[in-house]
Amino acid sequence: MPGKPNFSGVIAPVLTPFGEDGGPDPDRFVDHAEWLLATGCTALAPFGTTSEANSLALDERMELLEDLIDAGIEPALLMPGTGTCSVADTAMLTQHAVDLGCGGVLMLPPFYYKNPGDEGLFRYFAEVIEEVGDDRLKLYLYHIPPVAQVGFTLDLIARLRKEFPATVVGMKDSSGDWNNMKAVLEAFPGFEFFPGAELYFLPCLRKGGAGVISASANVGAAGLRRLFDGWQGAGADRLQEEIGALRTTLQGFPMIPLLKALIAHYRDDPVWAVTRPPLLPLAKAEADRAIKTLADQHGFRLEFAEAA
Amino acid sequence: MPGKPNFSGVIAPVLTPFGEDGGPDPDRFVDHAEWLLATGCTALAPFGTTSEANSLALDERMELLEDLIDAGIEPALLMPGTGTCSVADTAMLTQHAVDLGCGGVLMLPPFYYKNPGDEGLFRYFAEVIEEVGDDRLKLYLYHIPPVAQVGFTLDLIARLRKEFPATVVGMKDSSGDWNNMKAVLEAFPGFEFFPGAELYFLPCLRKGGAGVISASANVGAAGLRRLFDGWQGAGADRLQEEIGALRTTLQGFPMIPLLKALIAHYRDDPVWAVTRPPLLPLAKAEADRAIKTLADQHGFRLEFAEAA
Repeated sequence: MPGKPNFSGVIAPVLTPFGEDGGPDPDRFVDHAEWLLATGCTALAPFGTTSEANSLALDERMELLEDLIDAGIEPALLMPGTGTCSVADTAMLTQHAVDLGCGGVLMLPPFYYKNPGDEGLFRYFAEVIEEVGDDRLKLYLYHIPPVAQVGFTLDLIARLRKEFPATVVGMKDSSGDWNNMKAVLEAFPGFEFFPGAELYFLPCLRKGGAGVISASANVGAAGLRRLFDGWQGAGADRLQEEIGALRTTLQGFPMIPLLKALIAHYRDDPVWAVTRPPLLPLAKAEADRAIKTLADQHGFRLEFAEAA
Repeated sequence: MPGKPNFSGVIAPVLTPFGEDGGPDPDRFVDHAEWLLATGCTALAPFGTTSEANSLALDERMELLEDLIDAGIEPALLMPGTGTCSVADTAMLTQHAVDLGCGGVLMLPPFYYKNPGDEGLFRYFAEVIEEVGDDRLKLYLYHIPPVAQVGFTLDLIARLRKEFPATVVGMKDSSGDWNNMKAVLEAFPGFEFFPGAELYFLPCLRKGGAGVISASANVGAAGLRRLFDGWQGAGADRLQEEIGALRTTLQGFPMIPLLKALIAHYRDDPVWAVTRPPLLPLAKAEADRAIKTLADQHGFRLEFAEAA
């Protein structure tokens, strides 16, 4: 657990592009992942909420992960999401990721039954870890109560860390609740902590945070990286302010369809805008308004020269 | 769509027993299903909320369904749950059920993303139905907002029925909201409507309901069946009152662990009490208290002579 952290910096929950046939598009997916690593991301977290992971079949998730690695992306840089509602499917996805050499996995709690309680969640994670039974497993807890409704209390985190100190090494906190982030950072020094949005990036770094895992890293990794590289320098507060202002504008639109619309626009590739139901793509007028607002207010644009 | 209903009467969302190794136990599962049909159930809805379906692997669900049919249970009497968060996995489970000849499927909406909106949900169901592309498919909407958080509005039901009249034939309503049940029953005559709990069994029958799909049918099918067979008779209100009182007592305990504890006790088979995390089995003292309360207040007991 102590020593060099497994992950740090700017991590994108990689968007999942779909092709004309409605299936996940491995070529666009790999292109996007490579572009993210080339333009600021230090690592990638495919199959998160932003990735529409739960709208993918289990098979599709495993195949897409293999596609990234087959394309030459270092498995140690990958922290795929592997949490489902069942111990068995979660253990299967997790074992698959570990066998491929992934640096870690980001695991949702089982999210069907509400208010399961800490004891039930503890047993769930214990069973997954024991079923995988692999020392290479590095598990990051995925705390996102606004969506999953089920989350991690401080007591549960403490118990999991105590029981599995070499395995439960970090957390993504998408609660949006600064008091919770602060409490986790203070309670668990050395825990690899990532806020789930950059509004709290600098405050978290100053309290020992490891980086950020944010949807908007899909279209704004460079700015996040400048802050990560320079957070102890003089301009950090101003960078945080700019990043926060951009994020606030992005949040004025449905996030996942917006990110896909931006990439579709700047890649001149309309297929990129496709989402899977129940998510809907942004309507044309809404996408145009978003592109204009972002350009006018933040000078926002994307460059894809490197991706050729 | 009109004509003889596909399903009616008392339908149990079949509990899933786990064996000593933690895996689903096909023998106990088949025994329980046969006992339910022998003691009052008109049909079975395996893989619902009560069945811990979302705690099962996709493979486990398909194997257990095959076990029921291999044991000789008429597929037309089966309405397995097949809803997941993804079109692809849902279509796979649904196709599997249709190919086995199941009389219908009970389908949760995708429940990861919250507030998806009617248009996103419509497209989701349309994609599933088109992907399965099979005239034999009879789809029952599974409305359970207290757990899934995502549900069906009247507008969405109307649109699905209009677009797929031969496929979207019914609904289980576990909202617990009588106003919603009444509104659906009034808006859609001929729709095969099942309240998700027997507190509203008689009121729904009187407004055209098709039966009931209730957790407690796992331990109380006979009483429910008496009401279903005699609902137009003189004693119906008293039967509803007794059934309601029993349900109210059952609801004083966590439902799924309670049902398993009751079967474990009366079958003298402690393994039956096992649940999968995040659910926890009832503690011994709590189970004893439940057994005593039910016996004292309702003369409740289970007989398993037929299951030998």
